[in-house]
Amino acid sequence: MTAIDVITAKRDGGRLTDDQIDWVLAAYTRGDVADEQMAALAMAILLNGMEPDEISRWTQAMIDSGEVLSFGDIGRPLVDKHSTGGVGDKITLPLAPLVAACGAAVPQLSGRGLGHTGGTLDKLESIRGWRASLSLEEIAAQLADVGAVVCATTPTLAPADRKLYALRDVTGTVESIPLIASSIMSKKIAEGTGGLVLDVKVGSGAFMKTPERARELAATMVRIGTAHGLATTALLTDMSVPLGRAVGNALEVAESVEVLRGGGPADVVALTVALAREMLTLAGIAGVDPAQVLASGAAYAVWERMIAAQGGDPSAALPVASHVEPVVAERAGVVGFDALAVGVAAWRLGAGRARKEDAVQAGAGVLLLVEPGEKVEAGQPVLELHTDTPDAVAGARAALEGGLTVADEPRPRPELLLDTIRA
Amino acid sequence: MTAIDVITAKRDGGRLTDDQIDWVLAAYTRGDVADEQMAALAMAILLNGMEPDEISRWTQAMIDSGEVLSFGDIGRPLVDKHSTGGVGDKITLPLAPLVAACGAAVPQLSGRGLGHTGGTLDKLESIRGWRASLSLEEIAAQLADVGAVVCATTPTLAPADRKLYALRDVTGTVESIPLIASSIMSKKIAEGTGGLVLDVKVGSGAFMKTPERARELAATMVRIGTAHGLATTALLTDMSVPLGRAVGNALEVAESVEVLRGGGPADVVALTVALAREMLTLAGIAGVDPAQVLASGAAYAVWERMIAAQGGDPSAALPVASHVEPVVAERAGVVGFDALAVGVAAWRLGAGRARKEDAVQAGAGVLLLVEPGEKVEAGQPVLELHTDTPDAVAGARAALEGGLTVADEPRPRPELLLDTIRA
Repeated sequence: MTAIDVITAKRDGGRLTDDQIDWVLAAYTRGDVADEQMAALAMAILLNGMEPDEISRWTQAMIDSGEVLSFGDIGRPLVDKHSTGGVGDKITLPLAPLVAACGAAVPQLSGRGLGHTGGTLDKLESIRGWRASLSLEEIAAQLADVGAVVCATTPTLAPADRKLYALRDVTGTVESIPLIASSIMSKKIAEGTGGLVLDVKVGSGAFMKTPERARELAATMVRIGTAHGLATTALLTDMSVPLGRAVGNALEVAESVEVLRGGGPADVVALTVALAREMLTLAGIAGVDPAQVLASGAAYAVWERMIAAQGGDPSAALPVASHVEPVVAERAGVVGFDALAVGVAAWRLGAGRARKEDAVQAGAGVLLLVEPGEKVEAGQPVLELHTDTPDAVAGARAALEGGLTVADEPRPRPELLLDTIRA
Repeated sequence: MTAIDVITAKRDGGRLTDDQIDWVLAAYTRGDVADEQMAALAMAILLNGMEPDEISRWTQAMIDSGEVLSFGDIGRPLVDKHSTGGVGDKITLPLAPLVAACGAAVPQLSGRGLGHTGGTLDKLESIRGWRASLSLEEIAAQLADVGAVVCATTPTLAPADRKLYALRDVTGTVESIPLIASSIMSKKIAEGTGGLVLDVKVGSGAFMKTPERARELAATMVRIGTAHGLATTALLTDMSVPLGRAVGNALEVAESVEVLRGGGPADVVALTVALAREMLTLAGIAGVDPAQVLASGAAYAVWERMIAAQGGDPSAALPVASHVEPVVAERAGVVGFDALAVGVAAWRLGAGRARKEDAVQAGAGVLLLVEPGEKVEAGQPVLELHTDTPDAVAGARAALEGGLTVADEPRPRPELLLDTIRA
């Protein structure tokens, strides 16, 4: 078998055989299939698609390129959550301790942010002393003891995906539902979780701009999970406006702590509780109301232990940006925020990175001072720009052009929970 | 502009802008666009196509990546021919001296063979002393003096094409009509010829297997030539059976010399004369009958001077293979040869190369002992296998399975000249 055989089979619209899939991903991981060959194959897959069982085999071959974790019997059911990424999406931070407080264990192996969507690890790293890298033994021990781990994914998990993801990023082949779905699911299945809830975002700030594409991605991932014996449920949730009021690293940690203490923005609380309910269902835990557990302070107690277990000081003051300036409403009316515009502004202020080797600023980001749909006066501050690099403010203000609106009539805000897709 | 912008524009079915085309080919030639990015773009072009003016601009950008030759006033009109490649296609060898003998100048910058189709330079290199590499000054002087040059293309001509062609070869992106057409035409336009006749082959031994694909390729190339002010005509010719009786390097030189001396197989003579007529028409030379010039021996005289001018000895004995064995008819009936089967057999015997760094055997190949359609007896030798590596014979015989047929009734042989496509 040669790479050209596999490429031309997909190019000509065929289904790749199991042998072709197994061979090409193993050979690519070894370096025997060149980057330019995999790039041509990825483009052919993007344009000609893959069938459900083909995607499932592709996912299995990516899993088989590395290690599959097993935490043994830790005395709690394992359940995890994955979000496709959005603006202000800090849900993992309150969610993992909440679900642990309800009796499950959450092994969240996570990545860093790229572009306008933030990364969970970047957010947690704004906490003094917290470290993202744990050994497998540390992960297992923390799962059994605390019930929640949020840490960096290990290089031994689906190395084919790691290599392919970097390639897709530079070859215009990211936007393929089979490739996105298999990338996410290969890592989650290899992670060894017992159940998985997917938060598939839809809207301007999300990767999937339309409900149709988001639904297709969600259904594809649920199908892969089911085919691999992983109980999987997907929520379709709105990402046309930012989630909560804080967009940035330390800013989002602070908001998460508010939520864990029983306060915080209503949308963040609602989504955290909705995802927790689905996770508990998959974990087989009945009779526990996550809304009550959150309000009780039990989730906050787990948060403190979770942060401390990874070297962090949950009581330390969070970093703040050296420069903060407001953006004011140009006229009176009803304010609206576009998720993408706010996400790009925060990114430019230093909260995100353009290339994966870039550093992020812990204190940078955007803070919404009013809720979308709230009435404001002309000249009233509606949001704050936070940065250590004031030169970046002009770019952030430019990003907000057209994305910060003041209208005569309130625009209806989409429902936060759009749909649920079950196996 | 980034490579991803260009890739995604084509991926999403758009027409590339002139700026995008100019930028991506220049950046690729410089090495600023990576091979994996160009591979993804090539696959997107293969699957989503290009519009006629887009192909024309793509061709221009490939020309602009290097030098455009100009031979100044050499006292003769310049006209060239290009074949898309076939089995036994030695037509350049008699054609260039014939057209020169008729008063035009033929600047044939040529390549080496790869796979089952032979390369003109490989054939001529079987002549003792002949060298393929000439300087531009030598080419110009020989054109003015002899009227015909067949030599290696220079690295300064369309370097973008050279790099892209090698990439397409390993990424399953060869079979794109826009990319094939622009590759051929960029080199021919940069070569500085005044007219161009294309021999587009169709059939099992050709790159284009169906008349529809061959016609589309021919029309695309004629359109590119016209858009660049190069008078271009294309002949569609049959390649379902080998051309002539000799397939190999020295074997084809010997057959070409027969043709130049007024003999040789009827199909080789007919195609040589038909192509010469079109070339003379484009060169504006009227009142000369190439069939008569061929019969007169004048073309052979130019051949001797052309070979000698490049250091070759036209009277030297040609290399012969150390091992020759016949293949016999298994039964009585009417014999048929499939071009692809014979081409692959010759390749395996050593006449062709699998990788571009491989050497070829001068004496290797296949000689047809009877014409397709001729009646044979059981046990009668119908072709000869020539090789210096007898171990290769079994592979050659295997390649001929099903491609050497003996039937009760003659199969109608397709017309040699299928169509002519003019601007």
